Amino acid sequence: MPELLSKAPFRGRVEMLLTNPDRNLGLEKFPAPEVQLLFGGIAGDCHGGLTRKSDSRMLKQFKRDTVVRNARQVSILSVEELAEIATSMGIPAVKPEWVGANMVTSGIPDLTLLPPSTRLQFPSGAMIVVDNENRPCRYPAEIIERHHPEPAMGFVAAARHKRGVVGWVEAEGMVHKGDAITLWIPPRRIYAHA
Amino acid sequence: MPELLSKAPFRGRVEMLLTNPDRNLGLEKFPAPEVQLLFGGIAGDCHGGLTRKSDSRMLKQFKRDTVVRNARQVSILSVEELAEIATSMGIPAVKPEWVGANMVTSGIPDLTLLPPSTRLQFPSGAMIVVDNENRPCRYPAEIIERHHPEPAMGFVAAARHKRGVVGWVEAEGMVHKGDAITLWIPPRRIYAHA
Repeated sequence: MPELLSKAPFRGRVEMLLTNPDRNLGLEKFPAPEVQLLFGGIAGDCHGGLTRKSDSRMLKQFKRDTVVRNARQVSILSVEELAEIATSMGIPAVKPEWVGANMVTSGIPDLTLLPPSTRLQFPSGAMIVVDNENRPCRYPAEIIERHHPEPAMGFVAAARHKRGVVGWVEAEGMVHKGDAITLWIPPRRIYAHA
Repeated sequence: MPELLSKAPFRGRVEMLLTNPDRNLGLEKFPAPEVQLLFGGIAGDCHGGLTRKSDSRMLKQFKRDTVVRNARQVSILSVEELAEIATSMGIPAVKPEWVGANMVTSGIPDLTLLPPSTRLQFPSGAMIVVDNENRPCRYPAEIIERHHPEPAMGFVAAARHKRGVVGWVEAEGMVHKGDAITLWIPPRRIYAHA
């Protein structure tokens, strides 16, 4: 029987790591040479935690502020998709700091379209599981527009399907800038009944 | 922008709930009229826990017994797929008790093929997230063959893509036999690069 998870025929690379200890400082995060992945998320990052309060993204599922498991511990974007967003917006660059990224990758094509439950593994053995695509919201737009007040296209539109993925820590360990990323991808098929 | 999760055009129903407090009693589980879903899994079930030790399913990812987050807290099968397995095996029925099920559903077509990150929500608000398809292993086969020593087809072959799914608790709450199940399904698309 074939394996449930298949190794992707490419590897990614960790180009940048970022954390922010205090959400009250804003959405922006600050570069770090390495981070420690714990079951509760990235050590010292304000988006960590085993649980979180549900937000506007889940109003169809939960009353706001319901305590739910935190499947959004880590926010991952790619240099390739950030460059595409910048091109659409007509600005030189969208900095990862502005969009709340914890990790920026290269070499993973269409990062945002990775299937849910894809595993990203690092040389230490640490593992992140993709929960889902992230959706562009207004907060990064406000930060970007402080730097570039009149973009050719707004962030929310430009970042559609390029806003990266969010996920949670399946195995603990260190991640360093420059690490290779091995991807384990679940079966590819379309569910016929939805 | 469309919602990330779309509500399935059908609902499921909880036909049976099962737990087993002690793995040393075997893989078999025992029916219960209701269960409590906690972030650590089903209260009092031996497959619960926020973490677990990795097993033979993940030898390509981890050394055996590596501590990983438990994405296999709950095992879910459907009456429809269990009946199909029994037909293939040429036996009257495959009892959920024999295969380690925690929950048996009806009304969810091709339950085993539900996309990873699909959410199953219950009237209490409790939510289970599908991590992945479960894979048939030898243990249920041995239990079934105690009852039906010479099936027309072995369990592992008969249960392929019908063995249900495993998942983890996103929101706590009670689940009762007879509960309706609302399904929230992530974007359906094939990742082009794997």
